[in-house]
Amino acid sequence: MKKKDIARTRFSMVKKRHTDTLRKAEESGKIDKDMVPLCDYIASTKAFFTSSGCSGRILLLGLRDRSKKNSYFHRKWHHRVKPQEVISALKEKTTGEIWLKAEPFIIHIGTNSLANARKILSLKNKSGMKRGGIIVAKKGKFIVELIGTDELAVMVKKGEKILASEKFIRETVREANRKIERNYERLEKFEEIVRKELR
Amino acid sequence: MKKKDIARTRFSMVKKRHTDTLRKAEESGKIDKDMVPLCDYIASTKAFFTSSGCSGRILLLGLRDRSKKNSYFHRKWHHRVKPQEVISALKEKTTGEIWLKAEPFIIHIGTNSLANARKILSLKNKSGMKRGGIIVAKKGKFIVELIGTDELAVMVKKGEKILASEKFIRETVREANRKIERNYERLEKFEEIVRKELR
Repeated sequence: MKKKDIARTRFSMVKKRHTDTLRKAEESGKIDKDMVPLCDYIASTKAFFTSSGCSGRILLLGLRDRSKKNSYFHRKWHHRVKPQEVISALKEKTTGEIWLKAEPFIIHIGTNSLANARKILSLKNKSGMKRGGIIVAKKGKFIVELIGTDELAVMVKKGEKILASEKFIRETVREANRKIERNYERLEKFEEIVRKELR
Repeated sequence: MKKKDIARTRFSMVKKRHTDTLRKAEESGKIDKDMVPLCDYIASTKAFFTSSGCSGRILLLGLRDRSKKNSYFHRKWHHRVKPQEVISALKEKTTGEIWLKAEPFIIHIGTNSLANARKILSLKNKSGMKRGGIIVAKKGKFIVELIGTDELAVMVKKGEKILASEKFIRETVREANRKIERNYERLEKFEEIVRKELR
């Protein structure tokens, strides 16, 4: 086989595998609802696919120690959350540190050539996204990672001790909600641009 | 001129320009001290240069409104900070929201070819860095962005009102200090790998 054919074969295999995984995730509800239309659209193009994605979330993240390996989700929301719900969750028994976080979306878009990877970079710039780049660059397989910017990260509990006042936590949850709303707006804007410019 | 020559000429011009900028920044003290040895080393290689960088910092960031354009540094430290210093700074007159943030390092490394950009990605993976990718991919000019992970972002003041207790701010500043220390350790590790593997 010629080099070009090898690259083409690799790409069609990779695209098929990731599209199958996407279908399964959709059927079993294992993908964020907000990501489905964008991922479906990208899967419908000839030269692009998504390999993973998260639409953004609010977390109570537990850290048993300093390594991320030993972290766990005490709670996870893919939408606005009521401050009282966070406060109640904090009063439950937890281990190590608990961080209240708002995390932005993250998408991995795959494609078959450097020219097409560059096309994704241009859509990123067009939509005003600041974070992201090509993280895999092999013949026939390019992956572009795109990340939102709206972040918040606060240590709120250590061992059994809640560090912040309820008033402060309420204010911070409201801020996390604002961040997550803005995050979804950015994601929508990106989807709009993708639908217009990616075929 | 042949295409190859154009790419080569573009690269040597870009590398020279960025190396001159680096020298000027060093002379005028406009570059973070912790970045100088790494940037100098990269400038000494044939095929690589740095186009910008920040070694990481602790901030009191002011937001006049929701756009980043209207943000300002109320305070900025490139090292550990005493909790009392932060509390005093918060008591000064400020406008809008004030966020206490620990921001990780960010480096832009430029090079002449996709193969060399890929080399930087492999060093990123080797050093355990999670964030970063190729953000510019033109003939003769590739830029790889690398970003650390140790982040903290807390809204601590709104208008004239300090939202958190002094005790909580003290605890959060200590946490920011731990983040910034770990950030510098990661940067050192990356420098070690660069010196070993980039020529």
